[in-house]
Amino acid sequence: MIIVLKPNPTPAQIRHVVERIEELGFVPHLSQGVSRTIIGVIGDEEKLQMEPLQAIDGVETVVPILKPFKLASREFHAEDSIFDIKGVKVGGGHLMMIAGPCAIESESRLFEIAESVKEAGANVLRGGAFKPRTSPYSFQGMGEDGLKILQAAGEEFAMPVVTEVMDPRQVDLVVRYTDMIQIGARNMQNFDLLKEVGRTRTPVLLKRGMSATVKDLLMSAEYVLAQGNREVILCERGVRSFEDSTRNMMDISSVPNVKGQSHLPMIVDPSHATGRPDLIPAMARAGLAAGADGVHIEVHSCPEKALSDGPQALLPAQYLHLMHELRGLADLMGRSIDSCEGVPA
Amino acid sequence: MIIVLKPNPTPAQIRHVVERIEELGFVPHLSQGVSRTIIGVIGDEEKLQMEPLQAIDGVETVVPILKPFKLASREFHAEDSIFDIKGVKVGGGHLMMIAGPCAIESESRLFEIAESVKEAGANVLRGGAFKPRTSPYSFQGMGEDGLKILQAAGEEFAMPVVTEVMDPRQVDLVVRYTDMIQIGARNMQNFDLLKEVGRTRTPVLLKRGMSATVKDLLMSAEYVLAQGNREVILCERGVRSFEDSTRNMMDISSVPNVKGQSHLPMIVDPSHATGRPDLIPAMARAGLAAGADGVHIEVHSCPEKALSDGPQALLPAQYLHLMHELRGLADLMGRSIDSCEGVPA
Amino acid sequence: MIIVLKPNPTPAQIRHVVERIEELGFVPHLSQGVSRTIIGVIGDEEKLQMEPLQAIDGVETVVPILKPFKLASREFHAEDSIFDIKGVKVGGGHLMMIAGPCAIESESRLFEIAESVKEAGANVLRGGAFKPRTSPYSFQGMGEDGLKILQAAGEEFAMPVVTEVMDPRQVDLVVRYTDMIQIGARNMQNFDLLKEVGRTRTPVLLKRGMSATVKDLLMSAEYVLAQGNREVILCERGVRSFEDSTRNMMDISSVPNVKGQSHLPMIVDPSHATGRPDLIPAMARAGLAAGADGVHIEVHSCPEKALSDGPQALLPAQYLHLMHELRGLADLMGRSIDSCEGVPA
Amino acid sequence: MIIVLKPNPTPAQIRHVVERIEELGFVPHLSQGVSRTIIGVIGDEEKLQMEPLQAIDGVETVVPILKPFKLASREFHAEDSIFDIKGVKVGGGHLMMIAGPCAIESESRLFEIAESVKEAGANVLRGGAFKPRTSPYSFQGMGEDGLKILQAAGEEFAMPVVTEVMDPRQVDLVVRYTDMIQIGARNMQNFDLLKEVGRTRTPVLLKRGMSATVKDLLMSAEYVLAQGNREVILCERGVRSFEDSTRNMMDISSVPNVKGQSHLPMIVDPSHATGRPDLIPAMARAGLAAGADGVHIEVHSCPEKALSDGPQALLPAQYLHLMHELRGLADLMGRSIDSCEGVPA
Repeated sequence: MIIVLKPNPTPAQIRHVVERIEELGFVPHLSQGVSRTIIGVIGDEEKLQMEPLQAIDGVETVVPILKPFKLASREFHAEDSIFDIKGVKVGGGHLMMIAGPCAIESESRLFEIAESVKEAGANVLRGGAFKPRTSPYSFQGMGEDGLKILQAAGEEFAMPVVTEVMDPRQVDLVVRYTDMIQIGARNMQNFDLLKEVGRTRTPVLLKRGMSATVKDLLMSAEYVLAQGNREVILCERGVRSFEDSTRNMMDISSVPNVKGQSHLPMIVDPSHATGRPDLIPAMARAGLAAGADGVHIEVHSCPEKALSDGPQALLPAQYLHLMHELRGLADLMGRSIDSCEGVPA
Repeated sequence: MIIVLKPNPTPAQIRHVVERIEELGFVPHLSQGVSRTIIGVIGDEEKLQMEPLQAIDGVETVVPILKPFKLASREFHAEDSIFDIKGVKVGGGHLMMIAGPCAIESESRLFEIAESVKEAGANVLRGGAFKPRTSPYSFQGMGEDGLKILQAAGEEFAMPVVTEVMDPRQVDLVVRYTDMIQIGARNMQNFDLLKEVGRTRTPVLLKRGMSATVKDLLMSAEYVLAQGNREVILCERGVRSFEDSTRNMMDISSVPNVKGQSHLPMIVDPSHATGRPDLIPAMARAGLAAGADGVHIEVHSCPEKALSDGPQALLPAQYLHLMHELRGLADLMGRSIDSCEGVPA
Repeated sequence: MIIVLKPNPTPAQIRHVVERIEELGFVPHLSQGVSRTIIGVIGDEEKLQMEPLQAIDGVETVVPILKPFKLASREFHAEDSIFDIKGVKVGGGHLMMIAGPCAIESESRLFEIAESVKEAGANVLRGGAFKPRTSPYSFQGMGEDGLKILQAAGEEFAMPVVTEVMDPRQVDLVVRYTDMIQIGARNMQNFDLLKEVGRTRTPVLLKRGMSATVKDLLMSAEYVLAQGNREVILCERGVRSFEDSTRNMMDISSVPNVKGQSHLPMIVDPSHATGRPDLIPAMARAGLAAGADGVHIEVHSCPEKALSDGPQALLPAQYLHLMHELRGLADLMGRSIDSCEGVPA
Repeated sequence: MIIVLKPNPTPAQIRHVVERIEELGFVPHLSQGVSRTIIGVIGDEEKLQMEPLQAIDGVETVVPILKPFKLASREFHAEDSIFDIKGVKVGGGHLMMIAGPCAIESESRLFEIAESVKEAGANVLRGGAFKPRTSPYSFQGMGEDGLKILQAAGEEFAMPVVTEVMDPRQVDLVVRYTDMIQIGARNMQNFDLLKEVGRTRTPVLLKRGMSATVKDLLMSAEYVLAQGNREVILCERGVRSFEDSTRNMMDISSVPNVKGQSHLPMIVDPSHATGRPDLIPAMARAGLAAGADGVHIEVHSCPEKALSDGPQALLPAQYLHLMHELRGLADLMGRSIDSCEGVPA
């Protein structure tokens, strides 16, 4: 950590900073230049980062050197982590292809969609039972009844299932029915929820918040990991921007950016990132080409009657075509798409 | 609601849209021009907004006409709402001046700070017992012990108290000790938490999310109001932006923007918006000048040893000076700052 | 165009809007609902968009229906435009691979770099002679001497050359030496410069501004096209965002977004978009996978001594490796990379 | 400047960095810790900032210590600069109240508006003769004819006049007719234009770019100052953001932020920042309360027929009312609004 003092500090100010650092158990290294005085502090930066050194009189800025996350970092675990979700591997060259409707609406609808995405090559089924809706008057999800339908569909079509959890009180319920639990973008910094899913041993799909930096995302993963749940899969799903012709702005550079610093798998969600079916296929291809460990796509057999996010869903035929393209790209890049039985699809 | 079709729609596409609208119980008004076909649907827009009309084949875009919130709107309640928090009024010309430390650290520290802000003219005391920290390794708050200290300080210095709640399971606990509950920026779209505080009858201080639009903020207020809790005070605390010299970007225009559409009081929080003590006083003045119903400021008697957000806290002497300026501004604008006893300070 | 009136308009307000529209030569279509009154105006929207109808008393909002650009649109020219820059085609399946140093520094340096990128498969050489630098104290470019070196290198290695022009007064000079002229991000809305390059018949590489929407970019292309220069190639180079670990945020979705609306070719520039050599290869692949018509990369043989933007340059060996990957991707997608002689590289 | 090396650097990497710094004429200070090696370089940072040290193998990041601007800084000139524009002072407690139409449309219209804003207390008249319009098909301004009308109006109503210049070739023409020249947001980094106005001795009103940081703005001011023109007035006019209910987001914190670092005066432009007449008055008050040295407002006597930006103009009566409020605020804050004759209005 480097502490930069304001121009022309008084001897008393310098002495106070030095004493405060010594009081905290560190050895300060003082460098006095013509225009600036700098104090270097090398040691257990984690402990130092907790201290409000910037609030000390005479301090201009504090520059951290080390990353604030640990369990999520490549320094902690150099190789790509590979997780196995009921036979479907993700990470280290294994792609997770998640598909399904935004919300679970009925057994017949979900089974119909599940059958089509399975045939197209998806290896994880998604569906929301608890929906975070901007309006309190919108459909809020089927709750436990939806979870039962999702579990049944997963068994029928031999796919692990993933669903979102929004409330710490629902975590126990949700893990009983699903193979992976999703933390949505709006809850990426819902720290109590992160701790609660961290206490389970169910893999977590953690979506990037709408205004979260890459560092924020990794810090939220750290919350889950610190509780003992080591299986976190990250997901880029677009961030808020000034561009008004897409729902969000998909920051695909976050994929190599995260993977350079962390061993955790990272997938992309072009459905939420763009909100536009005409852009989803190109963004799915771009995600894989950038090194993503999978793609999350919303598929609905009748978008115009969907109870949630219909306008951004692909039709089954569109998804089938896209998966054909993505398999070609995966082959070129030496990646495999496992099916639930562990056999390459 | 206006449905704009893509160029050169087929008669079948037009017929399908018209039939879908009729099926939903509405009467479509068709206007066919040279370059575009438009279908107007006037009726219960709330119900229509739930429908994914944009997913219908041939539809280019759907333009809503009405606002999606209702209980929060001026159409529902034309006059400024005025709430009374244990004798301290807010809204309709009454200013709520909230001050206190980021986190409750000990009884002696909180009492020391509370005394100083009371003397300076603050009329609500704040202090965090449950802290949303980016890092799982940072101080997470004192919990219930902190709440007891906060309640005691409120009684000692005759100030209503406010504290943040982050978990739906803590709501019952928190309302036992406090006069107002804060929903922080990271939880503005934690819908289960919003519903839970909506079920209480304790006033809610709802902070704008880091990437929330003004409409999003009002929709989150609607979640609380829809549960029957009518006392929601909004708070601008800055949004994420590309400007890297301040912690957030304070969107002061949100104050007149919200107040033009809603009857709810709205205050500003320049501490979190800027993260810089050198900018806080100017932003506090700007907020009042823009019409805010109060100012939320973090104050600490020893920022360099604060357990949370020390670098952005004002010292008691700085707060005293700022309150002097703010009172002058309040007088000029015909606003009053009530004290807990209901007597103008 | 749709004009939405404020709630409960007076008959006089409605009459005034109707009269104003008729005065402008259009026929208004009035729809009065319970909660809102809407006036549809179908006709020459281009002319209507010039009128400040939103300023009329009683008008809440004006919703345009048609796109504001014309010559750049697919409605005007349905097929992908293909341009030929001295034998190198771009658009319609032909990829333009631009490479070279940020700034021209000396003949020996540029020739060395040109040779290496030519061998790697680049088909256009870049180099800046006039540099837009944030600081007035930074190296500002070699000017005309640089242009001469660039032209010579293009001839020596049989590559068309591109360089940036920043000042309308330099346009005549620059077109004498180069085969394509670049308008940089900072000048995307320098309308006098756009008009000036529009008057030439030299192809224009137009980079997206740091806070320009996709529509803004197409409007700037329209400025050039409207002057008679029909050869505009667009370039995504990242936009400003809150993410602080990359120089900009690369909005790759702009590629399919633009190409859906416009016949113009569009390439990507991952060098400026990320500012980080470790992310450039992944973003170049992502760009091609998303459908870009080429990739623009900065290459320098000694980045640590570069006079401009050294830290974001790839080394020749890195570029060689990247081009190998990109050729594989181009093959998979059925795209060709022409060399100057028109023979696929 | 501090150079942070990547983890576990090789001795050769460390030696190479050290040699490179010595080669540049500086003395490196090496600090080797357990987890990181840091090299401090104290000296002429301006020269160092030109060097791409970050591109050296083994370097993780380079942390600058000093600000990159000089002439614009408080270190260079500690007191607030006060400029005199034909008798109207700005800075150091003197407020510049600029008002007028977006575009000059005719002599009668401009004179009508000028008379009204003069009576309301404005002390500078604005009007655009060259207009930066997003669409090439929009009204582009009256050019020199407009300048003549503006000059005549300034003389008739005893107000200095300001107009925008967009093209370096127009600078000589514009300075003949006006008392202050405006650089618009879109040209804030049009460096050739900045140099050209820097060569004149006419005061420059420099508006912040839509995605410019505070540092970028000050660097652009430095371009003008470095050419010898010492009279630069800065202007906050809003930046691009995700908020879609206002034209831009007004970053009022930039006012104290800039004024803390720079001696230059800074005003606010709530007209462009919000684009909404209902928000302009609140934002004008907020700007003054935050310490701005003036307010720039667009006023039009018939917004619905304005040739440019009509929907955001205030009516003369609205401006009169606003100026009444602003004078009250100015009095409270001990600021004066001079009229052209130098007499407080």
